[in-house]
Amino acid sequence: MIAQTPNPPYYAVIFTSVLKTEHPGYEEMALKMEELASEQPGYLGIESARSGIGISVSYWKDLESIKNWKNHSEHLLAQELGKTKWYRSYSLRISKVERDYSI
Amino acid sequence: MIAQTPNPPYYAVIFTSVLKTEHPGYEEMALKMEELASEQPGYLGIESARSGIGISVSYWKDLESIKNWKNHSEHLLAQELGKTKWYRSYSLRISKVERDYSI
Repeated sequence: MIAQTPNPPYYAVIFTSVLKTEHPGYEEMALKMEELASEQPGYLGIESARSGIGISVSYWKDLESIKNWKNHSEHLLAQELGKTKWYRSYSLRISKVERDYSI
Repeated sequence: MIAQTPNPPYYAVIFTSVLKTEHPGYEEMALKMEELASEQPGYLGIESARSGIGISVSYWKDLESIKNWKNHSEHLLAQELGKTKWYRSYSLRISKVERDYSI
């Protein structure tokens, strides 16, 4: 689903990842984290796709919301499992959306 | 492939799309545009995935580079074909990457 975001400015967290060949439990956790993220203050939406690499872009009202989500206890556990068990590599970019348009 | 980008700040163009059921010629054009983009001044990298929705994030040195690529003649033709033939819907967001990290 394409996220329905408000008028800019708002923030985008661009998370790109490559999974290890074996990644037991990853899909369940990814779904759980998308659900949990959607309940956080300042959450505006998420877009995810995976084919070869995975790209998840979550949208947030401000940097404070992103920081709070980053430090959420369940999310911290998921991040730790990601680093140690699931991801071969990843990149995380925090960006400020300045303009957007849709059809 | 996860893009190897320089230290921030730089720009990310987040393009999210849903294809029409029939989209003849789309894949060829998408590949051609990724190749052509990579030859443009200010291009820093691209990441793409599609599963349900498609997400393509291209990285650029500055807004000027993004504008030049937007107005490239072959790209303008591809954009027109996208709007009229291939995409059911899409969203394009221009954002400034303020910080990033990788493993």
